[in-house]
Amino acid sequence: MSAIDQLRRGTVQIVDESELAARLAEGRPLRVKVGFDPTAPDIHLGHTVLMRKMRQWQDLGHEVIFLIGDFTAMIGDPTGRNATRPPLTREQVLANAETYKTQAFKVLDPARTRVEFNATWLAAMTAADVVQLAARYTVARTIEREDFAKRLRAGLPISTHELLYPLFQAYDSVALRADVEMGGNDQLFNLMVGRDLMRSYGLPPQIVMTVPLLEGTDGVDKMSKSLGNHVGVDEPPREMFGKLMSISDALMWRYYELLSSCTADAITALRDGHPMEAKFALAHEIVARFHSEDAARAAREEFLRMFGRGAGLPDEIPERTAPSRDGKIGLAALLKEAGLAPSTSEAIRLVRQGAVEIDGQRADDPKAQMRAGATHLVKVGKRRHARVTIA
Amino acid sequence: MSAIDQLRRGTVQIVDESELAARLAEGRPLRVKVGFDPTAPDIHLGHTVLMRKMRQWQDLGHEVIFLIGDFTAMIGDPTGRNATRPPLTREQVLANAETYKTQAFKVLDPARTRVEFNATWLAAMTAADVVQLAARYTVARTIEREDFAKRLRAGLPISTHELLYPLFQAYDSVALRADVEMGGNDQLFNLMVGRDLMRSYGLPPQIVMTVPLLEGTDGVDKMSKSLGNHVGVDEPPREMFGKLMSISDALMWRYYELLSSCTADAITALRDGHPMEAKFALAHEIVARFHSEDAARAAREEFLRMFGRGAGLPDEIPERTAPSRDGKIGLAALLKEAGLAPSTSEAIRLVRQGAVEIDGQRADDPKAQMRAGATHLVKVGKRRHARVTIA
Repeated sequence: MSAIDQLRRGTVQIVDESELAARLAEGRPLRVKVGFDPTAPDIHLGHTVLMRKMRQWQDLGHEVIFLIGDFTAMIGDPTGRNATRPPLTREQVLANAETYKTQAFKVLDPARTRVEFNATWLAAMTAADVVQLAARYTVARTIEREDFAKRLRAGLPISTHELLYPLFQAYDSVALRADVEMGGNDQLFNLMVGRDLMRSYGLPPQIVMTVPLLEGTDGVDKMSKSLGNHVGVDEPPREMFGKLMSISDALMWRYYELLSSCTADAITALRDGHPMEAKFALAHEIVARFHSEDAARAAREEFLRMFGRGAGLPDEIPERTAPSRDGKIGLAALLKEAGLAPSTSEAIRLVRQGAVEIDGQRADDPKAQMRAGATHLVKVGKRRHARVTIA
Repeated sequence: MSAIDQLRRGTVQIVDESELAARLAEGRPLRVKVGFDPTAPDIHLGHTVLMRKMRQWQDLGHEVIFLIGDFTAMIGDPTGRNATRPPLTREQVLANAETYKTQAFKVLDPARTRVEFNATWLAAMTAADVVQLAARYTVARTIEREDFAKRLRAGLPISTHELLYPLFQAYDSVALRADVEMGGNDQLFNLMVGRDLMRSYGLPPQIVMTVPLLEGTDGVDKMSKSLGNHVGVDEPPREMFGKLMSISDALMWRYYELLSSCTADAITALRDGHPMEAKFALAHEIVARFHSEDAARAAREEFLRMFGRGAGLPDEIPERTAPSRDGKIGLAALLKEAGLAPSTSEAIRLVRQGAVEIDGQRADDPKAQMRAGATHLVKVGKRRHARVTIA
């Protein structure tokens, strides 16, 4: 397969392919820029779609720039509307960057990865420099962007600085003389601004490549830590394996397309077999990638013990204690104290819906009194268990 | 008349009057900010409407801040679309500021005028500071401004930096802790941004006062040097007097309202007399203000000699020479060589429309040949003359 065929695989858009072919034909290592937000350094499988594409560039001998957008992260949300974006200090940015790198290097080749921080050039800009930059792009073009247009129509506020952010991001491409910028499909507008801006600075415009956004394990929303539908690359093998086994068959084929290293032929062959076999193979491949073959095998064994053969339990069952009062404790309170339910009311709900087993028996009364001194094997849903001693 | 009554006279809008009354009641000298653009330091009567209002504040014991907008002047027009806005150097700004001051102090009291340059604080801002500032104002509010809304509707480009300019100007009010900002009526939007921004910085919002825009001598457009309908405060008495005598009676009453120191009663009395008398009185008052009583009297005498008594000529007639060829020169060429017409074609037009007199006789042939050695008294229109010797 030619380089361009490999690079095209799994992308949503390339602007444009003939320029990409010409740039590849120059025969020199290209500078491939990809931006990351250091406010949330936990990498999940959604990010790895892009990272695998970055790795592909590296394997073809090009230079990947892992660009950390610390300039805006250190500003936070200046309007104060978004409490989840507090300004980060320089130290936090550096700490997050380390976390990022440790995780990213499970996919990327460290030797061909250049890590850059955009505050290097953006923090050095003066107000006059910002004016000069902002003069290069019209308001109309920015507010045409779908999310801005929607907000304007709905009468929702857009602060003026939000119009500057795409320009800063685009200026990163100028500062880095990027040959290519890659990002998720939702970033297409911003990547295209970079292209325009480079042209306005008299530079050859970067080639823009987007990859699809990976759906979370719910198969509905984009994978995101805040939605709780993510699989983090740092999660323990057992968690990762369990989450991947929980997805729908339909979503599994999507994951095969975006995450697996299987060739198209191998995927076709899998489609002829049982979907459960394909799901085990996918979970195995992913766990092996971020942990090891051994860890993947162990996670698979454990999963089979727990669910494959009916009543099995995982090897390691955590030990918990729950405090009694007057020598006893109600079941719902026990579930909460043992960390098996986030609140008593949630514990009551879980018992009522039949999700709780005590010593292998389904419990049905959340008020059932348990005596002090006893130890019970408590199971909630399919994957939460503990050996709880009532103190 | 109370201070507030005096200040209200001749304004278009005060936002708002009750705040102004309260601020005046504090009994301290208020800081009254007025911004000027150092790219065009020639002050004409249009500017003096505002300056007379500034002077009024000074006479009431307040502090006037003559704010020179050098920050944007030193940037120029970053889009390059407007060739009339080249970036100024620091030296040019300072030179222009001196010219400005010399002219402005014909109206203002130097002792109560504080001259400030906004680059002092704006040039010191970083890109992060600009983001913080821009976050305080929504895009929607700025693009509601009439000229922006019109341009957006017409599909004309608005560069992103244009959205920053009102914010920088508004930030000047924050930096100066302005109590009041004054400007022409076309500046209302910008002055109101200052009010909003001060509130957002937790400062008491400035009171905004606007004055009308003075029409030029054509009575049609706003007075402007580029339209050639201006009366500069630095023009010689004779020019100034002549221009003021050339305006329509209707415009004269407007000038009385906006430029004269006459009381309302005195103006009523003038309206009962002959309009020509009122016009002489206005021209006299203005020339005396920017030159002297003597200069005003002399300009009036000269004007009367020239036009009041039919054929008179001004006292000082410039001496010119025009080169002959083969012992003679055509009339149109002579007018051009003597500096009485900008081009030969314009000279031909002037002769054809009967605007040229040679030795008191109307000339009608632009090709009329004039002999070398002769000296003629040449008059073009009502106010251009020369004694021309053909060399």
